[in-house]
Amino acid sequence: MSMTSMATTALARANRAAVDKATAALAAVSAKEFSSSAMPAEVVLDAAVSDANKLEKKHFEIPEPLMMGPGPSNPYPRANDAMSKALLGHMHAPMFPLMDEIQTGLKYVLQTENEATFGLSASGGAAMDAAVSNLLEPGEKAVVSVSGIWGERFTEKCLRHGAEVVQIRKEAGLTPSFEDIEKVLEEEKPAVLFLCHGESSSGTKQKLDGIGELCHKHGTLLVVDTVCTLVGEPFFTDAWNIDLVYSGAQKCIGCPPGLSPMTYSARAMEKVMSRKSKPDIFSFDVTEVGRQWGFNGDKRPYHHTPPINIMFAMREALQIVSEEGLENSWNRHLNAHYQLWEGLDKLGLKPFVKNPEDRLATVNCIEIPEGLDAGKLIANAFDKFNLEISGGLGGTAGKVFRIGLMGYNCTPRNVESVVTAFEDGLKQQKFL
Amino acid sequence: MSMTSMATTALARANRAAVDKATAALAAVSAKEFSSSAMPAEVVLDAAVSDANKLEKKHFEIPEPLMMGPGPSNPYPRANDAMSKALLGHMHAPMFPLMDEIQTGLKYVLQTENEATFGLSASGGAAMDAAVSNLLEPGEKAVVSVSGIWGERFTEKCLRHGAEVVQIRKEAGLTPSFEDIEKVLEEEKPAVLFLCHGESSSGTKQKLDGIGELCHKHGTLLVVDTVCTLVGEPFFTDAWNIDLVYSGAQKCIGCPPGLSPMTYSARAMEKVMSRKSKPDIFSFDVTEVGRQWGFNGDKRPYHHTPPINIMFAMREALQIVSEEGLENSWNRHLNAHYQLWEGLDKLGLKPFVKNPEDRLATVNCIEIPEGLDAGKLIANAFDKFNLEISGGLGGTAGKVFRIGLMGYNCTPRNVESVVTAFEDGLKQQKFL
Repeated sequence: MSMTSMATTALARANRAAVDKATAALAAVSAKEFSSSAMPAEVVLDAAVSDANKLEKKHFEIPEPLMMGPGPSNPYPRANDAMSKALLGHMHAPMFPLMDEIQTGLKYVLQTENEATFGLSASGGAAMDAAVSNLLEPGEKAVVSVSGIWGERFTEKCLRHGAEVVQIRKEAGLTPSFEDIEKVLEEEKPAVLFLCHGESSSGTKQKLDGIGELCHKHGTLLVVDTVCTLVGEPFFTDAWNIDLVYSGAQKCIGCPPGLSPMTYSARAMEKVMSRKSKPDIFSFDVTEVGRQWGFNGDKRPYHHTPPINIMFAMREALQIVSEEGLENSWNRHLNAHYQLWEGLDKLGLKPFVKNPEDRLATVNCIEIPEGLDAGKLIANAFDKFNLEISGGLGGTAGKVFRIGLMGYNCTPRNVESVVTAFEDGLKQQKFL
Repeated sequence: MSMTSMATTALARANRAAVDKATAALAAVSAKEFSSSAMPAEVVLDAAVSDANKLEKKHFEIPEPLMMGPGPSNPYPRANDAMSKALLGHMHAPMFPLMDEIQTGLKYVLQTENEATFGLSASGGAAMDAAVSNLLEPGEKAVVSVSGIWGERFTEKCLRHGAEVVQIRKEAGLTPSFEDIEKVLEEEKPAVLFLCHGESSSGTKQKLDGIGELCHKHGTLLVVDTVCTLVGEPFFTDAWNIDLVYSGAQKCIGCPPGLSPMTYSARAMEKVMSRKSKPDIFSFDVTEVGRQWGFNGDKRPYHHTPPINIMFAMREALQIVSEEGLENSWNRHLNAHYQLWEGLDKLGLKPFVKNPEDRLATVNCIEIPEGLDAGKLIANAFDKFNLEISGGLGGTAGKVFRIGLMGYNCTPRNVESVVTAFEDGLKQQKFL
């Protein structure tokens, strides 16, 4: 695991001689060797350049559908505009106040005062890897709730990072109860419990109240995935005592993808600070990322180059959410959800999640009626209405349609468009 | 390391009963429970919403400097425009041909026919983590060339991922010779050799010809960092027998940051495919990423949500590079480099890298004259000319200025602006 210092020293010695030799040789080089620009120079090539993969000049044309699947959803146009602003360096002085604003806005939408709140420079999936890499040391145990693809992914990631996993499994469409979780925590006393607030593959919402306290009682850190829920469903990081939350940009926040919100509680940061080994992913080590974001130490040194334009967009999206207000946003999502199901019910469509309390407002799973060609209905919506209806994912593939009602896209008019597209598709196949 | 299957089974059994109970309970729930949208509903809140971190409505204003530091450099305006196009889902059918075009364009700029060529959904620094995680198993040995910050970073990352490291160290401003590398490969027979084509902290260029063959002779995979060189300096992945190359978007390619070019040779892929353990970072596992990008298997399943808008920009930037042609681009960078040094020489400024052959065209390190206040000169350039001149990094901090001549920014007019800013700064401090 450690550097072979013998070998390093030997090599360093060998190189010292080379350095001296080179320095002597270079003393003879003309001080004017660079002033040769009067005549254009040409690079000397070691090999012939292949034009095999040269791209043709072609106008960039791609459809612009209304994205009503589980995400990405269309960003706020203001966020899109902010994104295309001319670039600024991530280490330039004016950038730090902007990063501070992003942190403030993220604290608002996450309802937290955690210092360690920031945007990870990668996808929401990578934020899950970051959570595992930071919070679990090899050999430590995680209890992972699995009722869809995200619990499976968290399991896979834990195993790859050398942690042990105990799964608490539910069929797609169900979530573990408080009592289920209480039992497994008592039995296993894991270092980490993973729950998915919104399981977007099955459309379920995990109840979270009281679980933070339960985790604290057992010395467990609570990690919650909010990729498809943050800003769309009520969520309280601090009031619910959650230790690590990550999300995505491209769902209810209404920002283009590429910067993933994360927050670490003081307890989570204590754990990171007292690890025996360093987290294996340097790029996602929260103590290193935290220096650049300004919550670990006074200096803000270079750590990596973030997706600066997505930061511009994220700041604007967070401002838009602040202008609307979180309660208003949550109510908008809830009402769109009711509107959607009222419309689908009239068409004879049924929810996949049986218990209304467990249904996500943001990602809605619809049972595919027996005999219906789901692919045809989805293609019809895309071709005729320029509208995305999505199929299932993982365990729900082939069993459900999925409709996202998220962020900028979550409006009564868009809900009506979705219902119309379903109606048209059902009529085409003589289901209506 | 593996899942505790006993515990998992027990829990699964417990949950089976819960599922049955829930299903029975739910049979009683009204089929109409969702059709309640006639009256607007309101979310029930567990806690009070805090407005402490709400963002104010504020116009988004940030300076737009000409970025002549080591990067990011200003992207091509056409790439910036493409980026702000309305979003398309990453799994939508029209997206796959676009990803194919990006792969083609990357093959062109990397001069490779490697199937495993794609853009990693993260920073160039994360691409370095990905290289380590994919190519090295715990306990395997890497020889790492260190003559600046990037070799140090590669070392750090190897150690975190459980690999052993032997460093070949050179002082900043120098690079290891063919003979240096030959000697260490013979002695150490490492699994991986890391070289930095352009060490942007000291402005050196690593000679690469012949080293690929040397590596192959010793069963070593050659990894090369081209973050600040790709498209700016001649580079031939295949002709030079390089096994893994990664780069950044925001330097000579002229794309905004967030998607990092990577290519794996057939040999590198064989190594990944025959690993005893899986790479620890699921998000960056090239076999998993490769499914979504279409070079591992026929299906293109969901793996993660990439930064779709940056993909739009990357495609456009690669098209622009194709239109110019690689040789033209390399010559443009070389001539700007000569022009810069001709100008700086007249001002009495000296290059930090003594051997002209070792000097990067893309990142130019300038010795800070004794007694000059470098920070004042940099601030003057930014405040008066809206132009970025950068200081050193790591071992060169406080010793050099750094000027990037990269991509869209690499023009005779911009070089003149840099020289003018230096002249003005030197005059202010009575150095001229």
